[in-house]
Amino acid sequence: MSEMRKKQADFAFREQVSTMARERMGISEIGEMISLVLENGALSFGAGEPSADMFPKEQIRDAMTKAFGDSDVWGYHHDEFGLMELREWIAGRMSADDMLPAWADAANIIITNGGGEAMSLVTEALVDPGALVLVESPTYTESLLTFRKQGAVCVSIASDDDGIIPDELARVVSSRKARFLYTIPNFQNPSGRTTPLDRRLKILEILRDSDVALVEDDPYHYLSYDGCPLTSYIKLAGDDKRVIHCSSFSKIIAPGLRAGWAVIPDALIDIFCTLRISSGLGRPLAIQKGIWHYLSEVDFAGRVEALRAEYRGRRGVMLDSIEKHLTPLGIKTNRPAGGFFIWGNMPAGMSARKFAHYAVKEEKIGIIPGTAFYPSGEEASGDGSFRMSYAKVSSDSIDEGMTRLARAFRVFMSR
Amino acid sequence: MSEMRKKQADFAFREQVSTMARERMGISEIGEMISLVLENGALSFGAGEPSADMFPKEQIRDAMTKAFGDSDVWGYHHDEFGLMELREWIAGRMSADDMLPAWADAANIIITNGGGEAMSLVTEALVDPGALVLVESPTYTESLLTFRKQGAVCVSIASDDDGIIPDELARVVSSRKARFLYTIPNFQNPSGRTTPLDRRLKILEILRDSDVALVEDDPYHYLSYDGCPLTSYIKLAGDDKRVIHCSSFSKIIAPGLRAGWAVIPDALIDIFCTLRISSGLGRPLAIQKGIWHYLSEVDFAGRVEALRAEYRGRRGVMLDSIEKHLTPLGIKTNRPAGGFFIWGNMPAGMSARKFAHYAVKEEKIGIIPGTAFYPSGEEASGDGSFRMSYAKVSSDSIDEGMTRLARAFRVFMSR
Repeated sequence: MSEMRKKQADFAFREQVSTMARERMGISEIGEMISLVLENGALSFGAGEPSADMFPKEQIRDAMTKAFGDSDVWGYHHDEFGLMELREWIAGRMSADDMLPAWADAANIIITNGGGEAMSLVTEALVDPGALVLVESPTYTESLLTFRKQGAVCVSIASDDDGIIPDELARVVSSRKARFLYTIPNFQNPSGRTTPLDRRLKILEILRDSDVALVEDDPYHYLSYDGCPLTSYIKLAGDDKRVIHCSSFSKIIAPGLRAGWAVIPDALIDIFCTLRISSGLGRPLAIQKGIWHYLSEVDFAGRVEALRAEYRGRRGVMLDSIEKHLTPLGIKTNRPAGGFFIWGNMPAGMSARKFAHYAVKEEKIGIIPGTAFYPSGEEASGDGSFRMSYAKVSSDSIDEGMTRLARAFRVFMSR
Repeated sequence: MSEMRKKQADFAFREQVSTMARERMGISEIGEMISLVLENGALSFGAGEPSADMFPKEQIRDAMTKAFGDSDVWGYHHDEFGLMELREWIAGRMSADDMLPAWADAANIIITNGGGEAMSLVTEALVDPGALVLVESPTYTESLLTFRKQGAVCVSIASDDDGIIPDELARVVSSRKARFLYTIPNFQNPSGRTTPLDRRLKILEILRDSDVALVEDDPYHYLSYDGCPLTSYIKLAGDDKRVIHCSSFSKIIAPGLRAGWAVIPDALIDIFCTLRISSGLGRPLAIQKGIWHYLSEVDFAGRVEALRAEYRGRRGVMLDSIEKHLTPLGIKTNRPAGGFFIWGNMPAGMSARKFAHYAVKEEKIGIIPGTAFYPSGEEASGDGSFRMSYAKVSSDSIDEGMTRLARAFRVFMSR
């Protein structure tokens, strides 16, 4: 077949790019650090990912083989919210674990492409360009990108070791009308912080008084190492249906399955349904069915205990290693009660961004500078902090990595 | 755990809904008709879906079991565009089938959640609120919803049995600057029409002269029943990189897998990558790997021939049945050269929307009124047409359904 013969310059697609894509989509600082880790053949405390050792590969493979033997996984699925059996399992589990309010059941649950798609749908449903979204300080980078994509103005609320400071929240909502507050209440990414129960109640009260919604992102829920996880915001809010709850199977099973969920109020069900239709219809049903087959057969409590034991161990190794290598240098880090992350303070006056680049290039150890976890315009607030993860690193590598990190700190501090 | 005790009204989430969700997301007329089919226990010529008989269930199940045995399907996949082996298979296949221009290779291909997500990403990348998107008359409903969601003003270009009328396109683009033209060149949904080669070249020339991009949606490509499919727009455009090509495995394999792809120019790769990160990171890798295992082993030409033979047969049965039942009533329909759809004209003065509701309720046969396939504000243009699909109906049901349809027409015409 003949192609067009007249030779000409490429069509200028860059000039056709939407405002959304042109102005709201920055480069990911985390992505940049991960690339630097790979380029430099570095060890990494950067990746906030589950350990490959912990994926239940055999069981999931069997469950998926079973799923692909089912006759109803092949055609279009006309329930845009996903497989009802899996949604019922989630509703049952959440109820049993004191996470679900009385008004919600499987009809309020939508299965998503990981927790990220849940956040994307919530944002499309609720955010107009220019709308204010309140976030923790620091907060999860990908959610910031998702909010920003829809044109939200993200403003961070000052936080301490117990998460959002209620008085700071009250101060901001008294002067500006926010669309919602976004929070990761348990073992937060990136700070590892958990919001205590009394503070959750206080925050809900402030939001109720100022009529602001809350979006709860809780993917680390089951990864608690020092006791039971606290009651979720959506449950604490009770009949006051102002909370949307998002979660994920990425940490419980494996992130490669790309499966998560959101619990949404009745008032938003039809909207989420149309949003789903406009972005590629449903999500792969066989994956949902496989997850359901797996969950129906697994000893869930045992699975959770195994995850806790393994990651608790890694946390211990990293905390010990910090005490050995970083504490003597005067570097302060926190002790997370669960999840994957430890948050550290840079020595006074030292830039986390500059240090992270130095450390990965010169000492072959990757960490993520705090700047990655602040809204556009507030990045500098994070330049005095850094995130480390123990989730994906073996015990041997943790000590070797910490040795390198300490060496980098010493060189950087002596400059 | 105690819930908040102060009883109060539900949080007014409906008042918090974004402009996107509030004003741009209408009810789907197709969804409404499918619901009516189910409610009324009707036969359906409505669903534009592959036949369940044609899913390669055993082979896909084996391929998926193999995929879930691979070690690299469990963690996060750091190539947001998806599995490179599958993207290479697509690039090779498209090249062999005269569909890929010289500038494109696997790096330009992104795997998506069906063809729908491809369209969603294209729209996010290119459409600002108020931007003009040109579409065929009629066109695919879900794409209209996707364009509209981003705030596009969709305007349809008058079309005839050969698709878009070039002079009409030239007239519109001479007076208004469009962001892109959206077209399904082969066996279009809903009209069954195919744009001939000379017209494709003419349309490309008009777009080049007016500097407008083209988005080609080609999910029915391989389902040609009267000879080979024509060369794709993206190939015809050659070095002039103004075409984005979208396609899907839904018709080749099965829609339940939710897998499709887009071929995009280098200029948009980083943007699509960030858009993907903001909407839930990558898509399930095991599904992509399973599809790749399947495609690596299957006799693809034989598979395509089997699909063609089966659907060609169904097309024949429906055309014969139309000739027997509808032609005597003076109702005119077209003869598609492939795909799933036949487009019919209502008798003069008769409303397709009213008729479709009557037919499904009173005679238990579902068709889709043409109104479903026009942009907001232009729906009335479709009230003289209707869509029928033979893809999912057995031969026996086709004749029974057509008998019912003819009966409905007779009653309706006699009113």
